[in-house]
Amino acid sequence: MSLSSTKDTASDLNAQVRELAERSSLAAEKTAELGSREKDAWLLHAADLLEQERAAIQDANSEDLAAAEGRGVSAPLVKRLELAGGKWDDMLAGLRDVAALPDPVGRVESTTVRPNGLRVGRMRIPLGVIGMVYESRPNVTVDAAALCVKAGNAVVLRGGSEAIHSNRALGDVLRRAARETEVPEDAIAVVPVTDRAAIDYLLELDEFIDLIIPRGGPELIRKVTRSSRIPVIKHDAGVCHVFLDETANVDMAREIVIDSKIRQMAVCNGVETLLVHRAAADALLPEILKALHEQRVEIRGDPVTCEIFPGSVPASESDWSEEFLAPILAVKVVDGLDDAIEHIRRYGSDHTEIIITERYDNAQKWLQRVNSSTVGVNCSTAFSDGFRLGLGAEIGISTSKLHAYGPMGLEGLTTLKFVLQGEGQLRE
Amino acid sequence: MSLSSTKDTASDLNAQVRELAERSSLAAEKTAELGSREKDAWLLHAADLLEQERAAIQDANSEDLAAAEGRGVSAPLVKRLELAGGKWDDMLAGLRDVAALPDPVGRVESTTVRPNGLRVGRMRIPLGVIGMVYESRPNVTVDAAALCVKAGNAVVLRGGSEAIHSNRALGDVLRRAARETEVPEDAIAVVPVTDRAAIDYLLELDEFIDLIIPRGGPELIRKVTRSSRIPVIKHDAGVCHVFLDETANVDMAREIVIDSKIRQMAVCNGVETLLVHRAAADALLPEILKALHEQRVEIRGDPVTCEIFPGSVPASESDWSEEFLAPILAVKVVDGLDDAIEHIRRYGSDHTEIIITERYDNAQKWLQRVNSSTVGVNCSTAFSDGFRLGLGAEIGISTSKLHAYGPMGLEGLTTLKFVLQGEGQLRE
Repeated sequence: MSLSSTKDTASDLNAQVRELAERSSLAAEKTAELGSREKDAWLLHAADLLEQERAAIQDANSEDLAAAEGRGVSAPLVKRLELAGGKWDDMLAGLRDVAALPDPVGRVESTTVRPNGLRVGRMRIPLGVIGMVYESRPNVTVDAAALCVKAGNAVVLRGGSEAIHSNRALGDVLRRAARETEVPEDAIAVVPVTDRAAIDYLLELDEFIDLIIPRGGPELIRKVTRSSRIPVIKHDAGVCHVFLDETANVDMAREIVIDSKIRQMAVCNGVETLLVHRAAADALLPEILKALHEQRVEIRGDPVTCEIFPGSVPASESDWSEEFLAPILAVKVVDGLDDAIEHIRRYGSDHTEIIITERYDNAQKWLQRVNSSTVGVNCSTAFSDGFRLGLGAEIGISTSKLHAYGPMGLEGLTTLKFVLQGEGQLRE
Repeated sequence: MSLSSTKDTASDLNAQVRELAERSSLAAEKTAELGSREKDAWLLHAADLLEQERAAIQDANSEDLAAAEGRGVSAPLVKRLELAGGKWDDMLAGLRDVAALPDPVGRVESTTVRPNGLRVGRMRIPLGVIGMVYESRPNVTVDAAALCVKAGNAVVLRGGSEAIHSNRALGDVLRRAARETEVPEDAIAVVPVTDRAAIDYLLELDEFIDLIIPRGGPELIRKVTRSSRIPVIKHDAGVCHVFLDETANVDMAREIVIDSKIRQMAVCNGVETLLVHRAAADALLPEILKALHEQRVEIRGDPVTCEIFPGSVPASESDWSEEFLAPILAVKVVDGLDDAIEHIRRYGSDHTEIIITERYDNAQKWLQRVNSSTVGVNCSTAFSDGFRLGLGAEIGISTSKLHAYGPMGLEGLTTLKFVLQGEGQLRE
């Protein structure tokens, strides 16, 4: 193949991606004006159509699974690709749940009246076009489309190349559901090419796309953040901490640490590092670490922890900033609250940090001084989750401070405009 | 000079900028923990010190003015550089006004109780380090520092090279006021170099700086947006519209258009294009355009306007997207509300759009369908202003939809974290 024909192919691909983004942008104007009735009809119809087309989608999914196995992909990663059983049911239930959520668009918040009688309100409006860049799990295609469109946006979906057949099949059904209801078909677009360069080009199209949400491993997040001209809300790693204060109740501490670590292993809101007040380490650690050990959790301890609990292995420096997503817990004895906060500022990822304490002053200090996206007292890290916090749904957990910080639901997919109602008011 | 020594100089400059950003980042942790009392003490002391050091600052300002005149800079631009009279007084009053504003940091909004008893609140926290990139007006140095620090942030100030002596002098006083109160000195940093490459490098330092706010001409905004790795909130051009609906009251329309155009010429919230319903053009335009003409406003009209008001000159295509900032108004006759909205979507800048109407349905449609950052009925475009809308102060007017859209005050310089208060709640 000559150089010029390669160039032609690349520019053809770019033209294709550009056209798709432009159509999304036009569709976004129409989607912004839809009422809940139209958007909810699409959500419910999409759920029905997916049920109806289940066999065809499973076929497409099987193609992806076979290809992954053929490439020798590891079993857990193949599992994440699979659209079956509970995952399938959850995906369909998700569409119906989002239909039942209140529509944020058009809601007017906090109207005030100025001294001259001018009424000043703030109305929720959609952001425009959301670009989702994600890996593996094809159910994100449906979950993200549901939330973006319900919030009045168009969505451009760029899943991993390993899920391309599943994503295309799901996208076709979502678009058909749009054609058969009042939602513009182009409000849902699956990028049909898997070429890396096409993604880089997508990230330059700030005239059409308003926000990029990357979900996936640190490598993906870094790449997207570095090369995007479009604003990015990172849904990044979680190196979450639980700090056992001097006064922590040992039973509560044990239950919370176990729930935070082993309820689900491969989630970003699991605890990865346990910090323990030096004065309470002897009283708390043996029982808690023994319970974890019995549940086959590997303990990587600092020297004091290894002394107190000989079942530990010594932690290395890199363990303090590691998102294990596995039955491993780093454990460190600290000098107190200030030292714990210092550790989190140095090694944390702005995700979720919990203190277990019976002291009012330390609880207050923790909530005020730790500026991760979720901070808490005497509860599991697992509550850092849009459903559990009452957002109704979640497109992810943002570790970017701008716009939406922490679990991000429908409201995070909108913005506020100022709405003025006057009777001829002049400034002068 | 050899190539290698140029390289050394560049890397020296970069090291200097990097060190400054890192110190700002450390200072931001401390600033985030300050109470209002400490921050307000700094603001008031800074105002006193500026009064005391007025002569020295004026000397520095004179240096900038002389240099600008020496380079043959136009009189209006030299004027913008000047720190005298009313501008000086406003700058000092600004510091005292910001001290009187309520502190957003630590405020807990919308606490709810989950079915399991877990309390979920959202607490306002600072963003961290704000990088301000601006041109000419040295008073921005003081205004921006006041707002950023009051909201608990550190600020890195990079004004134009033409104002470097004024900005350094002002920065010195703000830092001295910090040393003499409880605010960390490094919470206020003026980038001491004017080298372009140093700015490009600053925009890469996303490990230290959390947000970039560019204020200035379109060229500056474009450059910053394109090269920044740090999230950017654009404070961009305003191509604002007033639409005279079929039922507009002619007296109200005339007064609002005049207030929106000639109250101040060189502001982003002035009207630049007047749209008029075809059915009312004959009744409304002659009187309104005559009044503007008498005030020496040049009318650039579409063919229908030129016919109705012969004092017009024909508008060119580029006039519809021009921010004149001058006694010029583009005027176009449109077929109705839909056509007006279409025009704004094509040529507008998402800033401020006002309808003058007596019709309830059209007022509602306008407020709902036009998604610029400020939309209004029967009032002047001049109300798109943080002070006038009741925000207390304004760091600028954002035309970026993410995080803060429209006039941006103290709250826009903060974000919300989730705050959980439990008694041992587990997810399972």
